[in-house]
Amino acid sequence: MEEALNFYLALIHYPVYNKEGKVVVSSITNLDIHDLSRLVKTYHGRALYMVTPLGAQRAMIERICAHWKSGFGASYNPNRGEALELVRVVPSLDTLEKEVRGETGLEPLLVATSAREWEGRFIGYRALGGKILDGDRPVVILLGTGWGLAEEVIRGCHYLLKPIKGMGRYNHLSVRCAAAIVLDRLFFREE
Amino acid sequence: MEEALNFYLALIHYPVYNKEGKVVVSSITNLDIHDLSRLVKTYHGRALYMVTPLGAQRAMIERICAHWKSGFGASYNPNRGEALELVRVVPSLDTLEKEVRGETGLEPLLVATSAREWEGRFIGYRALGGKILDGDRPVVILLGTGWGLAEEVIRGCHYLLKPIKGMGRYNHLSVRCAAAIVLDRLFFREE
Repeated sequence: MEEALNFYLALIHYPVYNKEGKVVVSSITNLDIHDLSRLVKTYHGRALYMVTPLGAQRAMIERICAHWKSGFGASYNPNRGEALELVRVVPSLDTLEKEVRGETGLEPLLVATSAREWEGRFIGYRALGGKILDGDRPVVILLGTGWGLAEEVIRGCHYLLKPIKGMGRYNHLSVRCAAAIVLDRLFFREE
Repeated sequence: MEEALNFYLALIHYPVYNKEGKVVVSSITNLDIHDLSRLVKTYHGRALYMVTPLGAQRAMIERICAHWKSGFGASYNPNRGEALELVRVVPSLDTLEKEVRGETGLEPLLVATSAREWEGRFIGYRALGGKILDGDRPVVILLGTGWGLAEEVIRGCHYLLKPIKGMGRYNHLSVRCAAAIVLDRLFFREE
């Protein structure tokens, strides 16, 4: 099998904001696991990290993946299992960084995404795609669930991608749609 | 309110393929309604059409929308209701075309999407985005659920968008992710 590109997608369930702006642990959404693993597989990333401190939620993700990788689902729909091979479940961003360091021998570059404007070290989509294709350093793209990544996570990242703006004033994409747009913007060039 | 762009997104539940390649009616997925209405709202389209011949499924969509537009959900999360205002439920593509014709006084341009290669009149993403911004003729972008739009629908469209290719050989995106990538490709230009 050809080698994957040197990037990881991470779906963060803590610390994220709820709609009152409080830092909370959000719950797993079943469809996120499927949609995002298929997305990472399509854009040839190394892994989808599901990050949650709740043990019961981590166990649930493992159970769902097992169903499609080796249970009834594996024969019913092998495409799903193939994508779910990329799912890794960890309790924290620290564990994620340790794993990527262990796997690649290099310090990962953390890139935050946000629907809000922040002051910070912005990186363009093409520029980040270029860094990934260069392959010098593993890139981890962080997506927040709920009402987005907590400020402490964003401040701890090396770079921040510009918010996705549509064509009007409304700007409330699901994390599944936002993730798809981010990965496509990194790599797609129309001839 | 500023006027919407002259395009519609249509999620087709019949006729589509199932995984054995048979033409079937697919079931509604609750999250499609939310994700795709928020997507159309973000890219400032006129409406999201949910197309299914099954009356009970159409009634279910109307019930879900009512919950978020005027039920408990409207106060709990007004952003959802705002997006769901764009949802229209119709039994067939014919009804959809009739509605768009009635609303705009013009013959809509039908554009198919497919994960497979077909012979046909392809149109580029930028070119289609340009047509929409020109606003001469309403554009309807058709997305298939299940294993994709039936050939008869694709053949009946004026244009076909090229399949979304990622960076590897795997190419199984969810309809939510595929829709997001399509709309972003129409309009996004990185400075």
